[in-house]
Amino acid sequence: MKIGLECIPCFINQSIEAVKMVSDDKELHTKIITEVIKHLGTIKFDDYSPPELSKEVHEIIRSLTKSNDPYKNVKNQSNKMAEKYYYHLKNIVQNADDSLLMAIKLSIVGNVIDFGTSNRFNVEDMIENALKKDFDDEPYPRFKEVLNKSKSILYLADNSGEIFFDKLLIEELIKNNTKINYVVKANPIINDATVEDGFYAGIDKLTRIIEGDAGQKSSAPGISLSFASDELLKLFKSSDMIISKGQGNYESLNNCTREIFFLLMIKCPLVAKDVGIDMGKFVLKVKNSNNMR
Amino acid sequence: MKIGLECIPCFINQSIEAVKMVSDDKELHTKIITEVIKHLGTIKFDDYSPPELSKEVHEIIRSLTKSNDPYKNVKNQSNKMAEKYYYHLKNIVQNADDSLLMAIKLSIVGNVIDFGTSNRFNVEDMIENALKKDFDDEPYPRFKEVLNKSKSILYLADNSGEIFFDKLLIEELIKNNTKINYVVKANPIINDATVEDGFYAGIDKLTRIIEGDAGQKSSAPGISLSFASDELLKLFKSSDMIISKGQGNYESLNNCTREIFFLLMIKCPLVAKDVGIDMGKFVLKVKNSNNMR
Repeated sequence: MKIGLECIPCFINQSIEAVKMVSDDKELHTKIITEVIKHLGTIKFDDYSPPELSKEVHEIIRSLTKSNDPYKNVKNQSNKMAEKYYYHLKNIVQNADDSLLMAIKLSIVGNVIDFGTSNRFNVEDMIENALKKDFDDEPYPRFKEVLNKSKSILYLADNSGEIFFDKLLIEELIKNNTKINYVVKANPIINDATVEDGFYAGIDKLTRIIEGDAGQKSSAPGISLSFASDELLKLFKSSDMIISKGQGNYESLNNCTREIFFLLMIKCPLVAKDVGIDMGKFVLKVKNSNNMR
Repeated sequence: MKIGLECIPCFINQSIEAVKMVSDDKELHTKIITEVIKHLGTIKFDDYSPPELSKEVHEIIRSLTKSNDPYKNVKNQSNKMAEKYYYHLKNIVQNADDSLLMAIKLSIVGNVIDFGTSNRFNVEDMIENALKKDFDDEPYPRFKEVLNKSKSILYLADNSGEIFFDKLLIEELIKNNTKINYVVKANPIINDATVEDGFYAGIDKLTRIIEGDAGQKSSAPGISLSFASDELLKLFKSSDMIISKGQGNYESLNNCTREIFFLLMIKCPLVAKDVGIDMGKFVLKVKNSNNMR
């Protein structure tokens, strides 16, 4: 996806959120937001996907706040909060008529609960409400079919906190000894999961964790093939199945020609338009079905 | 009020709305929004109230779209829609236990219904719901007291469409032969009322209409004393009572030292914080009570 004009106010709002996380100095806030605005005034809109531009915006914020990881506290809180619910959720999966489908749904629920922006909600209520929500499981038979034939899965993670929900799905996916490469970001970017989060959630005990953009000095909040490591590029071609979590990865990979299963919550009108599904909906979407590699 | 960082995304969203109203040319949209962003990257935040910066943003839009009045159609639609409800509303006022209080409430309702951004609502439903909403009428006794002593009122208008709701209040205010100066903008700015709208609503038959910023080449969406005509500055001092409609005028005049009755709907978190009242509420607020001039 290319950025739209509507992305710009969104980036500025996100930047305001980020600078307030690392400092109470209003002059510094103004200085940084002014630099972000100036940069946004220089860009060519056709040159960027939203994650690619977000990468540059957050480079400015990190440089001027002198904070390598403005969302560090938020990520820790997210992980701790999600961790608390893990066994409750595991119980839901184990008691479900179709534990794989339930694990898919919960993995998408993890993308709904945006630990990065708010913790004023009752997580149990949100999970319960989310599970009652409409969910179009039309691509599920294809998901199962591909899974049953797959010996290797590339699983692109999204946020910290959410990774505990991914863990539930990974535990279902590996039941047939399928090998998974769980892809996180090499560097802190917003509240995206890094290796540290993967270890915290114990995903390293289940699968291999790799940094999809290893070697890059900064990460984008969506794995773009232009920033991908050689290893990821190889795995992108060789893996039997690709599962992609969240909007950032969708925005980066929606035009790829190979089959990808996208699991996400629609939080932005431009993504809603591109996916063809309303805002606020859960999505299990398969693109380029039957075009496995 | 000074602009906050949060105003910037809001200005950009408003600019996107405006450029889409005058053209379908996406390249032109991008060109104009880029110029707006560039300008926003050069400003000193302490130098501006929101209406003052909005004035400059819309100068860029008008110049590059070569449209002197991007909201022309929207304003006409607003006036026609509000006109349809005028007699229905007049009936509500006439049958109310306290017709003045009802006219005040309806005048604020007019500020709620933002004809500028949406017409997907059922206006009658909105009026009915709005009238049921909580309304803090604590300043009403002071409003009546000042009104009863006033021979001259300065009434600062806000939007087109809304002026039909102002008309209901004006008809109550002039019952005691009070003289009103109804202040509109000298030039088109967003969906703010101009003399043309005042004539359309027949307000000229009830009171004098003046252009508060007569002589200025462009208007701000809030009457600022720094752009006010000599006549308005005199009336601002000499009028027995000042009634100010909408957020733009509040943002421009909230720090004035004389008594002003502000009638508005709270649509922005920064205004909500300054007024001390939640988003979405109706407000009748008196500032500097007892400091009449």
